[in-house]
Amino acid sequence: MLIRSAFLIQNGSLLKDIDILIEGNRISEVGRDLRPNDDEVIDARNMLAVPGLVNSHTHLAMTLLRGYADDMELIPWLRDKIWPLEARLRPSDIRAGVRLGCLELIRFGVTCYNDMYYFMDETAAVTREMGIRGVLSGVLFDMRPELLDDVEPFIKKWRDDDLIKPAVGPHAVYTCSEETLLRAREISERYDVKIHIHLSETRDEVDTFVNQRRMTPVEFLESLGFLSERVVAAHCVWLTPRDMRILAERHVNVAHCPISNLKLASGIAPVATLIEQGVNVCLGTDGASSNNNLDIFEEMKVAAVVQKCAAGRPAILPADAVWRMATENAYRAFSLDIGIRPGALADLALINIKRPWFTPETSMLSHLVYSMAGGVCWTICNGRVLMRDGVIEGEEKILEEAQRSYERLISEE
Amino acid sequence: MLIRSAFLIQNGSLLKDIDILIEGNRISEVGRDLRPNDDEVIDARNMLAVPGLVNSHTHLAMTLLRGYADDMELIPWLRDKIWPLEARLRPSDIRAGVRLGCLELIRFGVTCYNDMYYFMDETAAVTREMGIRGVLSGVLFDMRPELLDDVEPFIKKWRDDDLIKPAVGPHAVYTCSEETLLRAREISERYDVKIHIHLSETRDEVDTFVNQRRMTPVEFLESLGFLSERVVAAHCVWLTPRDMRILAERHVNVAHCPISNLKLASGIAPVATLIEQGVNVCLGTDGASSNNNLDIFEEMKVAAVVQKCAAGRPAILPADAVWRMATENAYRAFSLDIGIRPGALADLALINIKRPWFTPETSMLSHLVYSMAGGVCWTICNGRVLMRDGVIEGEEKILEEAQRSYERLISEE
Repeated sequence: MLIRSAFLIQNGSLLKDIDILIEGNRISEVGRDLRPNDDEVIDARNMLAVPGLVNSHTHLAMTLLRGYADDMELIPWLRDKIWPLEARLRPSDIRAGVRLGCLELIRFGVTCYNDMYYFMDETAAVTREMGIRGVLSGVLFDMRPELLDDVEPFIKKWRDDDLIKPAVGPHAVYTCSEETLLRAREISERYDVKIHIHLSETRDEVDTFVNQRRMTPVEFLESLGFLSERVVAAHCVWLTPRDMRILAERHVNVAHCPISNLKLASGIAPVATLIEQGVNVCLGTDGASSNNNLDIFEEMKVAAVVQKCAAGRPAILPADAVWRMATENAYRAFSLDIGIRPGALADLALINIKRPWFTPETSMLSHLVYSMAGGVCWTICNGRVLMRDGVIEGEEKILEEAQRSYERLISEE
Repeated sequence: MLIRSAFLIQNGSLLKDIDILIEGNRISEVGRDLRPNDDEVIDARNMLAVPGLVNSHTHLAMTLLRGYADDMELIPWLRDKIWPLEARLRPSDIRAGVRLGCLELIRFGVTCYNDMYYFMDETAAVTREMGIRGVLSGVLFDMRPELLDDVEPFIKKWRDDDLIKPAVGPHAVYTCSEETLLRAREISERYDVKIHIHLSETRDEVDTFVNQRRMTPVEFLESLGFLSERVVAAHCVWLTPRDMRILAERHVNVAHCPISNLKLASGIAPVATLIEQGVNVCLGTDGASSNNNLDIFEEMKVAAVVQKCAAGRPAILPADAVWRMATENAYRAFSLDIGIRPGALADLALINIKRPWFTPETSMLSHLVYSMAGGVCWTICNGRVLMRDGVIEGEEKILEEAQRSYERLISEE
């Protein structure tokens, strides 16, 4: 496959007429006037090529609950709406929700997502079928100890897959015992897989924990020897200066989810400070029931502007730093060999820049972060075209399937 | 013109198969199975019809400066980048910038915008040509007293136009003398036009004013008898409880610009409180050099989620309230007879809802505010189709013209 005459951002400059040659699932050459290796030649004259984006914290099946309950206080929202509906979810709903979510991720040029939810085997199968990468962990709660039984079989089943990276997902320190957390760590070491956990998301949760344990959730995890470069910690809104130093020292990856944190009134994570301290910060949308979409571009913009206001400094968290949160930082967190360079995995998106929000051609990186309002036309993952000039095969059927699943779910209310 | 089989939101419910008949520049009928009145029949089977959106605070010509200078502190940004470039703007640049801006507004279903800038005669001519409504005011600064001379001729020239509403635009209390403000008020009364002003945008500006005058900017305007339902005050970030009561009592309209306020680190306006107190709050993107786009949907989402977090209450500023800020509240502020009902101006947009972010069909209002990521396919203003199934006539030429204008501007640096 040859991508012909794309724009490319390199060291902050916009290059024109760049060809990208793809052989199998990898990029083999990047340069000018390359020769096609087969019949698939993509005319990218108006397109900017960007490496595949990563959504670092999702609950993808919950895309099925989008808009089902908004503008509610946290506890009634969970207790009266989300949990009862979740209790009725069947494997077919999970498939419908994950398909809908993958569809949306592909529309935003995302080629890898990091997920924690139930029915991970269904999620993995659908993700594979849709053609994107998933770092997938079944959620672990002590209230449902049987969930732990699925972890190792799931890892063994999927660990050699080229798209799926199985992982382990203890929900949080306030829902998992010390034993569960240690078991998760032990499994992650034994199989060399990532750990996905929610950490210090709300003030209440942290205050309650500190009152009971006389240490912060981060200090507690540190005391267990839980923290390492394998850990991806979502949210991290309420951190002490000591917490931040620990996260930096242990090379923990943080998945920042600014829109979810705002919408649920959780707070504003100290991201600019975390980055200054050397923490690897990635970006996630969280589930569509608390966002309500999977638009990683919108997430970038909100991340940047909210930090500026919180710090009172418009120069903080510039476009290039926030772009890295959705790309390079995530590649590091999830050990992904992605980038527009020879030898890298062929994960990339082509974005039509002949649109008002990319005009004039000042700084394309700034446009991607601050003005982008659509335009991803092609998404390629692992060398396979998933969206072709705006069209994703089977989209209509997926939308109908999601609608039917949702109607059945609410008919049982 | 007949719009056939659209979806329509009425009192929170989603109606299907609704026909909308347009005669001249007005809607003549809304109902089922209407008969076409001419050859123009729009198949809207997958489309949601919404009334034209309003962007209540812009500097549209500045769209030309999009991405030219980001991630800078306010003073160096203005002094070293924006002001020098603005000083070189020619009428042809204004035309290019306004055309680019109108193009973008049309793409977001906006049929009216409220603008303050230089070269308003050029702006009005281009806005008319592009086919949308503009409430337009030439900015007034005491440092350029000659600007005042243009106000009355501009009003007289455009006041009978069906798309352009001329207005008067004293920049702010710290840039206009008492005399200028009183003159603006007097002109607005004499010609019955709106007043567009920046008000209490940054903390520094308010603190400095209070130190010098021993009253807040709002109290000062109140003491001049300046405030009325004719006034549209942009920003209103730093208000005292007394300021808010005054704005409510005087029926002042507030144009809230959350993204600009975050990006420039100005702060978070007390919008939820303003609404509780009965102030009519609208929504604006501000200029594209501080946002960096004109996406009114993104602005709605950010407005909602930021208020929730600032108040610590996820139930505050729900989707319907924020939707009104971009529609009904603005119709009131600008005296626009818009709505999807017989007799109203034919200003509307058709949005394709067969997209992932509108699935499942839970609450369309929630989807419009919280998940919308593209899909406006048709924009109709004053009975004229401005975007037809995603295509705006002359778009490519407008993008090229903007690029050329920008290149000339920076070549003179």
